[in-house]
Amino acid sequence: MFRAALDAVDADTCLPRFLPDPPAGRTVVVGAGKAAAAMARTVDRHWNGPLSGLVVTRYGHGAPAGRIEVVEASHPVPDAAGRAAAARIVELASGLGPDDLLLCLISGGGSALLALPAPGLTLEDKQAVARALLRSGADIAEMNCVRKHLSAIKGGRLAASAHPARLVTLAVSDVPGDDLAVIASGPTVADPTSFADARAVLARYGIEPPPAVAAHLAAAAEETPKPGDPRLGLARAAIVARPQDALEAAAEVARGHGYTPVILGDSIEGEAREVAKVHAGIALQVLRHGQPAAGPTVLLSGGETTVTVRGQGRGGRNVEFLLGLALALGGEPGVHAIACDTDGIDGTEEAAGAVIGPDTLARGRARGLDPRAMLAGNDAYSFFAGLGDLVVTGPTLTNVNDFRAVLIAGDRS
Amino acid sequence: MFRAALDAVDADTCLPRFLPDPPAGRTVVVGAGKAAAAMARTVDRHWNGPLSGLVVTRYGHGAPAGRIEVVEASHPVPDAAGRAAAARIVELASGLGPDDLLLCLISGGGSALLALPAPGLTLEDKQAVARALLRSGADIAEMNCVRKHLSAIKGGRLAASAHPARLVTLAVSDVPGDDLAVIASGPTVADPTSFADARAVLARYGIEPPPAVAAHLAAAAEETPKPGDPRLGLARAAIVARPQDALEAAAEVARGHGYTPVILGDSIEGEAREVAKVHAGIALQVLRHGQPAAGPTVLLSGGETTVTVRGQGRGGRNVEFLLGLALALGGEPGVHAIACDTDGIDGTEEAAGAVIGPDTLARGRARGLDPRAMLAGNDAYSFFAGLGDLVVTGPTLTNVNDFRAVLIAGDRS
Repeated sequence: MFRAALDAVDADTCLPRFLPDPPAGRTVVVGAGKAAAAMARTVDRHWNGPLSGLVVTRYGHGAPAGRIEVVEASHPVPDAAGRAAAARIVELASGLGPDDLLLCLISGGGSALLALPAPGLTLEDKQAVARALLRSGADIAEMNCVRKHLSAIKGGRLAASAHPARLVTLAVSDVPGDDLAVIASGPTVADPTSFADARAVLARYGIEPPPAVAAHLAAAAEETPKPGDPRLGLARAAIVARPQDALEAAAEVARGHGYTPVILGDSIEGEAREVAKVHAGIALQVLRHGQPAAGPTVLLSGGETTVTVRGQGRGGRNVEFLLGLALALGGEPGVHAIACDTDGIDGTEEAAGAVIGPDTLARGRARGLDPRAMLAGNDAYSFFAGLGDLVVTGPTLTNVNDFRAVLIAGDRS
Repeated sequence: MFRAALDAVDADTCLPRFLPDPPAGRTVVVGAGKAAAAMARTVDRHWNGPLSGLVVTRYGHGAPAGRIEVVEASHPVPDAAGRAAAARIVELASGLGPDDLLLCLISGGGSALLALPAPGLTLEDKQAVARALLRSGADIAEMNCVRKHLSAIKGGRLAASAHPARLVTLAVSDVPGDDLAVIASGPTVADPTSFADARAVLARYGIEPPPAVAAHLAAAAEETPKPGDPRLGLARAAIVARPQDALEAAAEVARGHGYTPVILGDSIEGEAREVAKVHAGIALQVLRHGQPAAGPTVLLSGGETTVTVRGQGRGGRNVEFLLGLALALGGEPGVHAIACDTDGIDGTEEAAGAVIGPDTLARGRARGLDPRAMLAGNDAYSFFAGLGDLVVTGPTLTNVNDFRAVLIAGDRS
């Protein structure tokens, strides 16, 4: 199921049918995100005409893409390499004329990789505000509003730079609702929020920004392009792969093996170990009462859980989910599960995720691994590494967020 | 739906068909739990023959029960009233002969209400151990193992006291899996665990018990009755109402109004606000993708969430769930929800729970109530009290744990 999920959202599978017709003039490809290298490689292979360009991806997620240059930079904390790539991308876009085409390849992670501070601001200024927002409890819409007003590329500014060229954005979504304005902070999508909104967010959470940021937000010198902005009039955009596509592909595999797939959600959020308890509760309901499905069943879910780090261990949100799930199921016979990040990297560790079965806890204890203590210490990676139950893919060059499947052999009702 | 759920698990509805035939000798009714008064009243009304007895319930949950005395005691922290009632119940059971019947009425909360320390122990000894176990991370099976070995009534000891009388237990379940050995710590059910197991639990979590407890566990003077114990040979037991029954009744109401019910689980656990995020994710999946059900849909779940208290506010797990749900849904049109404790008391507050709708956050903010800050302060009760959106039932005299319904007007797929 996980393999089918990855195949469904691989650029080679899903991108070609969205490619536009070549323009009379030049075609320049730019882009950013964890899927950037694979998307660029697919465009290079399928493009009928001359082509050049530059995309930026995370360290370790690069791959040759023919005529399109691929550079690597830091994620999730931006670095100078990303900043330099973003500056070159804006420069490439700015040099285009009305007969030219800018093809923009966007995927999750692109926000950090395209960190280009607005004139007068430093990366450190932006980072200070980002950290304060993360601590404040501000939601993603509020954080994006501020980010877009401290950037020279986000919130549609890249699209404005490309005017009067034709602009086509192709995106791999890793966000709830598959909102183009949210993926990589929407560098080619009009932004309905304003400098005043950004100032209001900081005030709402009592955040005192660095002086340069305060001055920049107060000056409100150059607004982000708003919906209806004529510079974005020729912009077209399409989502080429979504979390839902990965889940549907897994569901098809499940059906083929006689399991009823129950897709719980493509954007399930919450603390990983608590989300696990709910998945366990639903699995037990299948076993005890044949609900929400009877017989052999697979629960499928996507979206990004969170981990509140309290311990000193090695973790990741998918392995935390799985260790929590194993504990909540308590060795329940007939229930197996996999949870992996579709980008191949569960947190900062060198595994995509892991698998569990009814014997996971017992096998761990037999090797001297205390599942409860290791979950408490955020040490789930070490637990599954000790068992040899990690799923290791390396970077997959795609990213539709997390993938979880709980396989239930059958109900007892 | 909530009314139908309560009706389905009311003693008057569900208990009479489980009543045994009257014995040749005396019939004595004993019992404990939040549903004890209603169960006793139903038995009194429907019993064909002479009858006497005593049941103990929580303060405020009492009601006249004809020939059966109803006393009130403290829950969840035991007090002297509960201890005295438990002692009288053991005395009543011990006085019966082979022609007599002991009818034992058990429901959630009965464990605290039937707190009768083993000879040589005090209530304070038991409380000290209970508090240490709660802090330790021990699971419910481990806690019950210890409790049963510090008690003169739990873990089948009441059944042993009643020998050689006939014993019939009728229970209202509030526990996952509807396990009679778990409801009220199984006073009439054989206990497979031993004094050695109890000592091992304390050792596992590094708990140093009071000296009297350590001496009692080391002496291992009188084991709990084990499965196959001849004193329990004539014992019969039935669950008269389960969380699942409440959910099924609500599902029937939903179907009658053209909504597809999706029962997620009768024992969903986890931190209330995180469980809420998962419910929100599933509701959004219905709206966006018509999964796991298309069209007008109701998500139903039961079980007991938990609240980690960090703030100074007034809360309860159902109102915390609802405030978290409202925030996760962010005013999503067409989604309404109710969450209530079926015993009528959400935590220690004077409401069963509350309701939310798409305008909940906006109405709160208009009244100066900050939903995010109030959730952070565990002040969800105050939020819903301020809106006038609490659901107030008073004690319902039943208890099948929590009831949650998320009503989704229809999908957009």
